[in-house]
Amino acid sequence: MKSLFVEDVVEKVGKEVELYGWVHNLRDHKKIVFVDLRDRTGILQVVGDETLRKLSPEDVIWVKGIVKERPKNLVNPKLKTGAVEVEAKDFKILSEANELPIDLTKDELNVSLPTLLDYRSLTLRHPKISAIFTVQETVIDAFREGLKKKGFVEFQSPVIVPEAAEGGSEVFEILYFNHKAFLSQSPQFYKQIMVGVFEKVFSVNKTLRAEPSVTTRHIAEATTLDAEFGFIDSWEEIMDVTEYIIKYMFEEVRNKNQEELKMYDATLPKVSGKIPRIKLRKAQEIIFKRTKQDHRNEPDLSPEDEREICAWALEEKQSELVFVTHYPVSKRPFYTYEDPDDLGYTLSFDLLGRGIELLTGGQRIHQLETLVKNAKKRNIDIKKSDLYLQAFKYGMPPEGGFSFGSERIVMKILGLENVREASLFPRDMERVDVRLSTIQKKPPSK
Amino acid sequence: MKSLFVEDVVEKVGKEVELYGWVHNLRDHKKIVFVDLRDRTGILQVVGDETLRKLSPEDVIWVKGIVKERPKNLVNPKLKTGAVEVEAKDFKILSEANELPIDLTKDELNVSLPTLLDYRSLTLRHPKISAIFTVQETVIDAFREGLKKKGFVEFQSPVIVPEAAEGGSEVFEILYFNHKAFLSQSPQFYKQIMVGVFEKVFSVNKTLRAEPSVTTRHIAEATTLDAEFGFIDSWEEIMDVTEYIIKYMFEEVRNKNQEELKMYDATLPKVSGKIPRIKLRKAQEIIFKRTKQDHRNEPDLSPEDEREICAWALEEKQSELVFVTHYPVSKRPFYTYEDPDDLGYTLSFDLLGRGIELLTGGQRIHQLETLVKNAKKRNIDIKKSDLYLQAFKYGMPPEGGFSFGSERIVMKILGLENVREASLFPRDMERVDVRLSTIQKKPPSK
Repeated sequence: MKSLFVEDVVEKVGKEVELYGWVHNLRDHKKIVFVDLRDRTGILQVVGDETLRKLSPEDVIWVKGIVKERPKNLVNPKLKTGAVEVEAKDFKILSEANELPIDLTKDELNVSLPTLLDYRSLTLRHPKISAIFTVQETVIDAFREGLKKKGFVEFQSPVIVPEAAEGGSEVFEILYFNHKAFLSQSPQFYKQIMVGVFEKVFSVNKTLRAEPSVTTRHIAEATTLDAEFGFIDSWEEIMDVTEYIIKYMFEEVRNKNQEELKMYDATLPKVSGKIPRIKLRKAQEIIFKRTKQDHRNEPDLSPEDEREICAWALEEKQSELVFVTHYPVSKRPFYTYEDPDDLGYTLSFDLLGRGIELLTGGQRIHQLETLVKNAKKRNIDIKKSDLYLQAFKYGMPPEGGFSFGSERIVMKILGLENVREASLFPRDMERVDVRLSTIQKKPPSK
Repeated sequence: MKSLFVEDVVEKVGKEVELYGWVHNLRDHKKIVFVDLRDRTGILQVVGDETLRKLSPEDVIWVKGIVKERPKNLVNPKLKTGAVEVEAKDFKILSEANELPIDLTKDELNVSLPTLLDYRSLTLRHPKISAIFTVQETVIDAFREGLKKKGFVEFQSPVIVPEAAEGGSEVFEILYFNHKAFLSQSPQFYKQIMVGVFEKVFSVNKTLRAEPSVTTRHIAEATTLDAEFGFIDSWEEIMDVTEYIIKYMFEEVRNKNQEELKMYDATLPKVSGKIPRIKLRKAQEIIFKRTKQDHRNEPDLSPEDEREICAWALEEKQSELVFVTHYPVSKRPFYTYEDPDDLGYTLSFDLLGRGIELLTGGQRIHQLETLVKNAKKRNIDIKKSDLYLQAFKYGMPPEGGFSFGSERIVMKILGLENVREASLFPRDMERVDVRLSTIQKKPPSK
């Protein structure tokens, strides 16, 4: 198996090395041919004679050669390996590539979003594109690690569910052994059940939503990160844990992904001290004062409002993150806890960052009767979610939690324009790998 | 937030403590009432006066009291906390439970499988049941940790796919924005694509299979663990990595889950040195010699054969695990690499353990032409899996990998009888949380 990577070569000056990778670029200078060899760790210059001329971009090759220091004036500061090159003695093509439809050799991959996705298996190999998923891996690992340090247990939440749990139409239906079943929009019910078992839990989920709109921030399949925990003394503790894990994730990205951040000229959201926490109504007052736009009777923040309150938090509180709390009962799911000291409003919050909602959370109702009553009020047939009710029937502690999409966080960290860029294989109304217009239509039986 | 757990109390003798948990059991001795308080770390005896009598099993409570050492003759060796008890000074019910339909207080939860699952939110609270999922967490964490140590990168594989990738009818169909789409049976195509990006990758997946049979070892939704890596010198390296990670997982379970193993009187599979590797035909010869049953012309091992070859490996090689290799081309997916030195047979393997297949793997075809030719031979319309072909069109190294279900491994470690016991919320032909007979039928449009 391959044991030497491109980035290791800088430490092998004077030695003979064997390397494996892809031909990233070729520069033919008549008697001398330069090959940029790429592997997952970087790019390295290989120099050889005209026999190298038969190589093409993306050919998979084996090269044997001697590592040489480059003369000072030929050092390439843009490459990690820019101080060395390998003088090829021998090489072999392991796998030949067809002619490429796009150019991978520039620092920026200047293609449209549809092209980026039409050639996804190829475009993912561009260092600036694969970097996005290195950051996603860090975010998810940090979520796990940070919560485990606080005694949380990871569990596996199901994808197939018996009911469209929270009501709503944006749910995918499946044909399940001659029955109807649905795809999970959220592990909400299951993580609450698991609080009854392990007290503090989290899950990394595939959540599926039949979002009927094509926006830059919605995808049909997302990798979401969910946590839930019991025995809270106060709902503020849910925000405390949220704040802890968000800061933990940012710190991990800062520690591990400097190279990736540099590619995007990105910095992590600034947070000085505690993240500000304000009620929705207070946020609306602030927005009214700043913009003269009166949204004080709205039940939620509009996208413009979200941007405005983020601007306020940065200017006034030196924070790129802000908690907005106490959304009205009507705007939150039936299981959300109503604030006994502020009736009509819930013990719920959104965490906003860089102009959009990053995360949502809150305290849940843990009393069976209230839960059933609330579901009824909203015409939700909760009886079909029998296991969920069971958890409350047999004793549940006061509890709450939060949920967010890994793609949206990565998008905001790197400053991507579209959340699709932060999903390896994004699914939406128009695409499941291939454009849907090219695949079979469902017969109009429904 | 709760900060003191039941298991911590043994170190607090003489101190006043505040505890939160569930009433596991009540023993009423007239003037004195004993309460077994349960949390996720164990069970603790609380002693108090008749006011405790109003508690019921599964009530969620807060208790304040003094930790006392028990007299030597009253120490309970079955409990981690058996040397102490808490003398209750005050308590509060946080959440009242209804009367329980089953008894959770015995060491064994003696209920049928349907009852176990009908009351899943409750039965999961039994210490011997939740222990299964502590072991599952260890297995999945160890898979991640072990592969990361070897330089593997984790990626997120999609659930919704455009085609029933490997052919076969056991695929769930979904209605996707007026199109047909399917649920992923395996991340196979995606992990191969990702070898072109990160070289060595793994994923933790939800895989969905419309298994039309009700056996003790199949479920419709599983959490599978997949790895794939490129630049192999020999296909034997794929078995080397498999062996490494299996041993790593067992070692982690041994280190972290002694308590859980004890509950099941379970030991980890014995492996002395290298796991034996034998060709299928050799295995059939051995079975013929041992049993006089002649299966030498069969293309696969029957369940009886699997048990027999495991018995052989244990007796003759002191190993509870055995690799069986070289399944015929016809019995393996179209992308499986044919052995150039043994035509008609593939560079593929199953890892068998304790009588059943635990894991499957092999080398894959990395040449576009061979791949397309093989798919055609089997009438697989691979053109719809455009991104998969793209990876090979633009240069892929020699590569291979393996895949296994976390539930089946846990089942075999703990000696469970049915794989459903190793899934938190098992889905099969008859059940998605609730029994399917109780949920809505799909109209007979299909």
